[in-house]
Amino acid sequence: MNPELRHYLADRRAAVEEALDQYSACPGSPPRLVEAMRYSLLAGGKRLRPILVIAAAEMFGLSAADVMPTACALEMIHTYSLIHDDLPCMDDDDLRRGRPTSHKVFGEAMAVLAGDALLTRAFAVMAEQGRVERVGPARALRAIAELAEAAGAAGMVGGQVEDLEWEGRQAGEEQLERIHSLKTGALFRAAVRLGGVLAGAAESDVARLDDFAAHFGLAFQIWDDVLDVAGDAALTGKGVGRDARQQKSTYVTLHGLEGAQERARAAVQRALEAIAPFGANGWVLQGLAKYVVDRAT
Amino acid sequence: MNPELRHYLADRRAAVEEALDQYSACPGSPPRLVEAMRYSLLAGGKRLRPILVIAAAEMFGLSAADVMPTACALEMIHTYSLIHDDLPCMDDDDLRRGRPTSHKVFGEAMAVLAGDALLTRAFAVMAEQGRVERVGPARALRAIAELAEAAGAAGMVGGQVEDLEWEGRQAGEEQLERIHSLKTGALFRAAVRLGGVLAGAAESDVARLDDFAAHFGLAFQIWDDVLDVAGDAALTGKGVGRDARQQKSTYVTLHGLEGAQERARAAVQRALEAIAPFGANGWVLQGLAKYVVDRAT
Repeated sequence: MNPELRHYLADRRAAVEEALDQYSACPGSPPRLVEAMRYSLLAGGKRLRPILVIAAAEMFGLSAADVMPTACALEMIHTYSLIHDDLPCMDDDDLRRGRPTSHKVFGEAMAVLAGDALLTRAFAVMAEQGRVERVGPARALRAIAELAEAAGAAGMVGGQVEDLEWEGRQAGEEQLERIHSLKTGALFRAAVRLGGVLAGAAESDVARLDDFAAHFGLAFQIWDDVLDVAGDAALTGKGVGRDARQQKSTYVTLHGLEGAQERARAAVQRALEAIAPFGANGWVLQGLAKYVVDRAT
Repeated sequence: MNPELRHYLADRRAAVEEALDQYSACPGSPPRLVEAMRYSLLAGGKRLRPILVIAAAEMFGLSAADVMPTACALEMIHTYSLIHDDLPCMDDDDLRRGRPTSHKVFGEAMAVLAGDALLTRAFAVMAEQGRVERVGPARALRAIAELAEAAGAAGMVGGQVEDLEWEGRQAGEEQLERIHSLKTGALFRAAVRLGGVLAGAAESDVARLDDFAAHFGLAFQIWDDVLDVAGDAALTGKGVGRDARQQKSTYVTLHGLEGAQERARAAVQRALEAIAPFGANGWVLQGLAKYVVDRAT
């Protein structure tokens, strides 16, 4: 990664961390609940979704501060989905990012409720977005509608349902792509689109952002499968080879390690093509896309 | 209940049922997930929260159709909270409104996800509200912010956490009122307030609606405790005396049956006083408040 991009990511990430800390303070709420929300929300991570919102918005003249509520809402929704996915009745995971999962620390009931509270908080924070002068209520409202659609039954939650329905069976490529495009792709697309939507970008430009994000998300997911086989457990924070032990279809089981890597790189190429019309203005999104198939975690 | 009010409630309830059916169709989503969402959402019930939104909005010149998305969002959030509350890791209930609970029919994982999807759908539907010409994006956005606040960590979810924390211990009156004001009161208040907010009512009138709803919610909750002891199991759809067997503090254990009834009637009185300035215009809210301590279910 080049130093300019590294510096950019560190800077925006610090701003996101500060905002997440502030938005999750929840004064007047039960302390143990707030502790559970913050345990998962402030557990580090790349903050990729918030940074995608910010990078897209900056391309169209807004600042990171202008879209920070929406950027943080994306991370809250991502985090709630991880808490619920880890529950014993779902994937039953004990570890997440190298730490005990929410229900292991706070109990199942609190984990369910912490997830519910984070999802709800995301929309409260989004609604604040309308008070940002350069965004305004109409765009903020459209952003809420798009994010709710992406996170709901026709998006992320639907993807989790399909994932569970295919458990123990070998999904084919078409089904695997459908699950990923819903389960993780929908939020990536919302993140990049919303940057443009909040900035009032032309619909043709929002469509370009959408196209970029769809291929970006695919590359990201394929590379996750690659790292599950080839990655370093100490870096990824989860056991290597976990997918294989669970007999899940992955891009690696379908195409082999090299075939999967090739497909990830092809997806990055298509993502870059989608935003080529933006030229140098798209340098952060370009850099992030290249980094996706370069990362070790 | 007088015939005029009975007719009004039947009419608005039918409109709510139709809108809920339409808003929960979720084309393109996994069929089993949609089935689970609709199993709980379309299970009947009084539709009290949506009707409160509509009745309040009508007092300030809007029609039921103008606020239908918000009215239905309230019911979706109420429904998701029941699904999650019934989970084995929470209250572990097998029956709800006389039918098997969601997790009994669809399994725990699907029940968690159906709840998540209903909560998310509520905000998608609310965002549509901004397209209603007589509401507009600014009021719709404020409504989303208020509802998310009421449903989240400082409201409904927070109340559920406190309820769980007091399980097996006898809460005193102050604590009991706090739990109820969060767990059920916050949504009642949001319902009545939002009718006024969406209609652009003066802040002083929104404050009157809020005051009404706080006492309305309290009366409703006390009467629920009364019905748990004195009610007819066939009508309430749950076992009579359930609270006592769980050794939960209720208004009846704290004040006796007659003391609780007295307190419920006093709360209704204060609710009526709060909206007295609206005169005859407040006839639906007045009728609903009187009905609360008259109902058998």
